Amino acid sequence: MVNGIERPLDLLNNSKGKEVLVGLKGEKQFVGTLLAFDIHINLVLDNVKEMQDHEMKRSLGLTFLRGDTIIYISPASTARKKE
Amino acid sequence: MVNGIERPLDLLNNSKGKEVLVGLKGEKQFVGTLLAFDIHINLVLDNVKEMQDHEMKRSLGLTFLRGDTIIYISPASTARKKE
Amino acid sequence: MVNGIERPLDLLNNSKGKEVLVGLKGEKQFVGTLLAFDIHINLVLDNVKEMQDHEMKRSLGLTFLRGDTIIYISPASTARKKE
Amino acid sequence: MVNGIERPLDLLNNSKGKEVLVGLKGEKQFVGTLLAFDIHINLVLDNVKEMQDHEMKRSLGLTFLRGDTIIYISPASTARKKE
Amino acid sequence: MVNGIERPLDLLNNSKGKEVLVGLKGEKQFVGTLLAFDIHINLVLDNVKEMQDHEMKRSLGLTFLRGDTIIYISPASTARKKE
Amino acid sequence: MVNGIERPLDLLNNSKGKEVLVGLKGEKQFVGTLLAFDIHINLVLDNVKEMQDHEMKRSLGLTFLRGDTIIYISPASTARKKE
Amino acid sequence: MVNGIERPLDLLNNSKGKEVLVGLKGEKQFVGTLLAFDIHINLVLDNVKEMQDHEMKRSLGLTFLRGDTIIYISPASTARKKE
Repeated sequence: MVNGIERPLDLLNNSKGKEVLVGLKGEKQFVGTLLAFDIHINLVLDNVKEMQDHEMKRSLGLTFLRGDTIIYISPASTARKKE
Repeated sequence: MVNGIERPLDLLNNSKGKEVLVGLKGEKQFVGTLLAFDIHINLVLDNVKEMQDHEMKRSLGLTFLRGDTIIYISPASTARKKE
Repeated sequence: MVNGIERPLDLLNNSKGKEVLVGLKGEKQFVGTLLAFDIHINLVLDNVKEMQDHEMKRSLGLTFLRGDTIIYISPASTARKKE
Repeated sequence: MVNGIERPLDLLNNSKGKEVLVGLKGEKQFVGTLLAFDIHINLVLDNVKEMQDHEMKRSLGLTFLRGDTIIYISPASTARKKE
Repeated sequence: MVNGIERPLDLLNNSKGKEVLVGLKGEKQFVGTLLAFDIHINLVLDNVKEMQDHEMKRSLGLTFLRGDTIIYISPASTARKKE
Repeated sequence: MVNGIERPLDLLNNSKGKEVLVGLKGEKQFVGTLLAFDIHINLVLDNVKEMQDHEMKRSLGLTFLRGDTIIYISPASTARKKE
Repeated sequence: MVNGIERPLDLLNNSKGKEVLVGLKGEKQFVGTLLAFDIHINLVLDNVKEMQDHEMKRSLGLTFLRGDTIIYISPASTARKKE
């Protein structure tokens, strides 16, 4: 097992306090530090930047994100090299 | 933990009485003072302004917002500086 | 608390017998007197007018509205001045 | 209370045996006599006419309608005058 | 009560072994003999023809239809004359 | 009863080991041998071919299909002649 | 039974540690090594590549994928030859 991930939520747990990239329906992304999540995949991120097609659209600070519109969540540190 | 946020709903609890920016599906935003929320993320906001693409479309006063169409909720005070 | 609103449904309870503006998915609005609601946010309105882009499309009288397509519900009396 | 409507389903109960106008997602309407409904707002209508943009498209006789695609249900007799 | 229909599923029960017209989301219709249904409105039809805009697109034989995409189900025999 | 089908899932049970045509939302079809299904209508097919508008797009081998996007499932052997 | 697959989730279990192709709503695919899944078909993939119309769009590393937007999951090794 990579990083002791046995269930999908283990990855979210491992990513607390780290920067994550969150992909939403409709080609929108949020980048921010993951502070909290629940089983509905509702998230709280800090220092959030809203991106659309790789361009920053808005700076949002602390933000609650509803799980319903999320497609993927990826720790930013793993995007280029495997941890 | 920033502001003692352990679960996503803690951020909504901390934001009661404060101005929040609510992003909805379809590029629509509501700005208003958060008065109440429930586990379905249904909200009541006061002094609501409905925005579309950064322009104010309508002033709505007290408003019940169904959680179902909400993408994100962000306290306005955190948009530029971290609390 | 404004008007004793602690939970989102309190606003609907306070609005019974009053005119409300109901925003639906797809830029459609219904205006009418709120007679009843349930936890699914199903509503019964009386003297209903269906609006699209601020124009009246149809007069519907008594109407059952399914909660599923509702985005927001706002008491008309609060749109310009705070109660 | 108008017509003793305390909960939304009371209006459907009062409308049994009467002609109703049912608005569906996608600008489609069904007109027919309400025979039965359940808590999912599934309906059975008799003598159904399917309308699109106010034009009759098809005559369907007895029809089961899934609640899922329904936006509103309005007794036809209330469209112009309050009962 | 027409045909002893008290609950919506009674119409489906009465229509077993008969030809039904099933309207789906996206202007698609299936015509076939109703063999079975469940509470999710999943259906099995036999001798199925898939129609789009009143034209036959495909002959499918025995077919399982998921309730989720169904808008209406109407016994073909009732389309022109009331039973 | 044709083939002893009393409930919709009976058809899926009868179709195990046989080739089925699966219609998905968005004019996409999968053709393959049905190996397994569950009550959510999640399927496993073998020797899968993905079709779009009657053209083969891709060969997928063993595939898990989420029930959520499925419109219909039809045993290929019944498309032209009744079993 | 091919590979001892009796229930749909058996295929996901058999695919742990292997490369899978995941098809999402909206013509998007993710390719990566399956590390974990749950009953909602939430996945964790490693070494993820996001594809759109057969072109690589982005390298994502470790990624949590919400089951909700998934159409199919296919072990890459089965695409051309049956295991």
